[in-house]
Amino acid sequence: MAAKSKGAPNLYGSFIHSAPGAFLASKLGLPQPAELRRYRAGEPALPGPVLLGGKGRLAEPIVALLGDDYTVTDAFDAGIKYGALVFDATGIDSIDKLVQLFEFFSPALRSLAPSGRVVVLGTTPELVASVDEQIAQRALEGFTRSIAKELLRGATGQLVYVAPEADSSGTGVESTLRFLLSAKSAFVDGQVIRVGTAASEAPADWAKPLAGKVAVVTGAARGIGATIAEVFARDGATVIVADIPAAGEALSETANKVGATALPLDVTAPDAAERLAEFAQQRFGGIDIVVHNAGITRDKLLANMDESRWSSVINVNLAAPHRITSGLVAKGVLKEGGRVIDVSSIAGIAGNRGQTNYGASKAGVIGMVDAEAPLLAEKGITINAVAPGFIETAMTAAIPVGTREAGRLMSSLLQGGQTIDVAETIAYFASPASNAVSGNVVRVCGQSLIGA
Amino acid sequence: MAAKSKGAPNLYGSFIHSAPGAFLASKLGLPQPAELRRYRAGEPALPGPVLLGGKGRLAEPIVALLGDDYTVTDAFDAGIKYGALVFDATGIDSIDKLVQLFEFFSPALRSLAPSGRVVVLGTTPELVASVDEQIAQRALEGFTRSIAKELLRGATGQLVYVAPEADSSGTGVESTLRFLLSAKSAFVDGQVIRVGTAASEAPADWAKPLAGKVAVVTGAARGIGATIAEVFARDGATVIVADIPAAGEALSETANKVGATALPLDVTAPDAAERLAEFAQQRFGGIDIVVHNAGITRDKLLANMDESRWSSVINVNLAAPHRITSGLVAKGVLKEGGRVIDVSSIAGIAGNRGQTNYGASKAGVIGMVDAEAPLLAEKGITINAVAPGFIETAMTAAIPVGTREAGRLMSSLLQGGQTIDVAETIAYFASPASNAVSGNVVRVCGQSLIGA
Repeated sequence: MAAKSKGAPNLYGSFIHSAPGAFLASKLGLPQPAELRRYRAGEPALPGPVLLGGKGRLAEPIVALLGDDYTVTDAFDAGIKYGALVFDATGIDSIDKLVQLFEFFSPALRSLAPSGRVVVLGTTPELVASVDEQIAQRALEGFTRSIAKELLRGATGQLVYVAPEADSSGTGVESTLRFLLSAKSAFVDGQVIRVGTAASEAPADWAKPLAGKVAVVTGAARGIGATIAEVFARDGATVIVADIPAAGEALSETANKVGATALPLDVTAPDAAERLAEFAQQRFGGIDIVVHNAGITRDKLLANMDESRWSSVINVNLAAPHRITSGLVAKGVLKEGGRVIDVSSIAGIAGNRGQTNYGASKAGVIGMVDAEAPLLAEKGITINAVAPGFIETAMTAAIPVGTREAGRLMSSLLQGGQTIDVAETIAYFASPASNAVSGNVVRVCGQSLIGA
Repeated sequence: MAAKSKGAPNLYGSFIHSAPGAFLASKLGLPQPAELRRYRAGEPALPGPVLLGGKGRLAEPIVALLGDDYTVTDAFDAGIKYGALVFDATGIDSIDKLVQLFEFFSPALRSLAPSGRVVVLGTTPELVASVDEQIAQRALEGFTRSIAKELLRGATGQLVYVAPEADSSGTGVESTLRFLLSAKSAFVDGQVIRVGTAASEAPADWAKPLAGKVAVVTGAARGIGATIAEVFARDGATVIVADIPAAGEALSETANKVGATALPLDVTAPDAAERLAEFAQQRFGGIDIVVHNAGITRDKLLANMDESRWSSVINVNLAAPHRITSGLVAKGVLKEGGRVIDVSSIAGIAGNRGQTNYGASKAGVIGMVDAEAPLLAEKGITINAVAPGFIETAMTAAIPVGTREAGRLMSSLLQGGQTIDVAETIAYFASPASNAVSGNVVRVCGQSLIGA
């Protein structure tokens, strides 16, 4: 990471003396980007114990679920540095009870370790019966996004909404909590994740959650796709890496490096789903996980755009994943309990100048998640998307320096993310323990200021 | 407006040579903030004719509804400067048809007049039956937010989602279209508005839509509240201006200036709803419109906050409007066909450093709109919220200059808004023609970059 940030300090120095630099400094209060703690096998998930507050329906199950692997306590000691502050806010069913957030977090915040975690657990506002509870629960979002902007030294804050009818054992929320309460979520910040009611089970080994699973990753020759393949292999999956035939050499290298099988495949070919289905069926007996990572940009102001720029972006980023998912599901090649993971973008949420084609395609990906989630749920398949912010890749390295620097700094974590951060989030969606996680779009953006 | 931007040019000059300035310049492409065209009685709604494209269910009704007051044509002439480009995208029911957006807008964009309007009309994605249509309709959002970021010289872009079951006469969408296709929406940019199915009727006079209506505005002594009162009076309403007793003198001045009736009222008093109800019932026989504009900030990092800062903000901004709305509805003082308008904030959407209390309260306001909209619909009452971005007020004038300048420039329109911009949006919600507009949160922010 240090190598990739080369050159940043000087630019940052001139930046904080400019007007928007002062603005950002005052908003973010961070003197400099913190080094983020990232996952290493064998290291503790958190840099300290979990302080648990709040008296809702989740606090007890959480202690039972996490107790073996985490130190969880509800007794605050100002002399301890906590790895996480977790607040069960599901008991907040009226506006006046919101003060419990203040009471728990205000004294505890100073005791949060670097790269620590704040997690607020609430009840999905749209699904509660009482108006007062819905209002109070919806308020959690503004609170959590604000507290995330106050955290220092690489700490992050998230909100998890758990459906009111979710299994009272808490197993539905376990994979989400373990992801957030770990170094794997280093660059996920200020996010809201919704957990539903599907029955879930812990994997035999949380360090190898994908053992026995067959995963396909498109656009896997290099960049984010190659890292996804690597993380999937680390987590125990059998991996098929696909990319366009022109990327053949890089694809073989990635396959060899991670121990995956290479499949040259143009995702926009009319028979792409058939070819992938046949390949996966014959070699591995089907597919458990498909990651539609292949994507392109063809930036141009709309007034200067030609139709091929428009259509190629729509076809690769939106039409192809839709057609391939539909094909794999129709053929039964994507198995019961399967996982579909799409890649959206902040540009699909907020729009971006010069990217009407890309913005449309990546917003369409969100529509794909929304539309397909309830249908796939009938087959026990989940669908979710990541929406990366500024991630350090060969693509972003080619951006002019000023723009690149601003892209890094315009976020709560004051830096770009790594491809591993996107891959870890995708691996969390892919986990068999994430049965109750569907229909989400989670930004991997360090709480970028840019939104809509 | 010019006076209020005093001092901006020099700061801007140094700004665009900084890294984030270059970033913004490349993102926004605007050499300098454009002077926005704002409403003046008797002037044409738009600076040119409306070019209408797309073949959906709305194009024909729109011509019929707007034809008397607007010049509407579907024949593109590159020699004409259009006041608006309106595209009926309700016919786009598959991904491949998205190319129609490219075909219509790419050639036409250069022919949009300064302060012109782009409006895309779609079908509410969550409400369509077909997966392909839902995906394509959801893609419109990324397209529209991107095109809004490409528009120059004060032009704006919005997306309107119309429910599939909406009245085929198009009257449900008329108030929204007239608002967007006018100078009243000058600072509304990059927004998505949802229009439902409730039957609607045009007012006798679009220049006096609130004639015969009784409106209450809280926090009306000065700032945004005073401007709301002014606009309501201009639009024909009988106005009650309320504010805390300590603001008595300013409140009287505002009341005298706009011809309103002053009511000193602490909205957090337990009997606030009773007092307001009694006053309005006795003097005017009830209330048609209530605007919960009263709001406070008590900024402090959460680690340094005391409970009174927390609770006062939650009470004024969230608990009070909820209690007053409930009280007025329960008593029947807020009449059938009534309007409730709340004030959220970008801080309630994105969170803000130093504003955990404010962010929670303003996110709670969004929850209030979500939760109360279906209940109030049973009584023919609508509820919506505005979420102001950077608005030029006495409050924002007190912000340090660097922060203030950045707040202005970090938006597509590269400037702060005026109180009138918020007031016009509220007046649009308040219109009796906006029967089908409920459950919306519309940002008045010049498409601020800041979001979530």
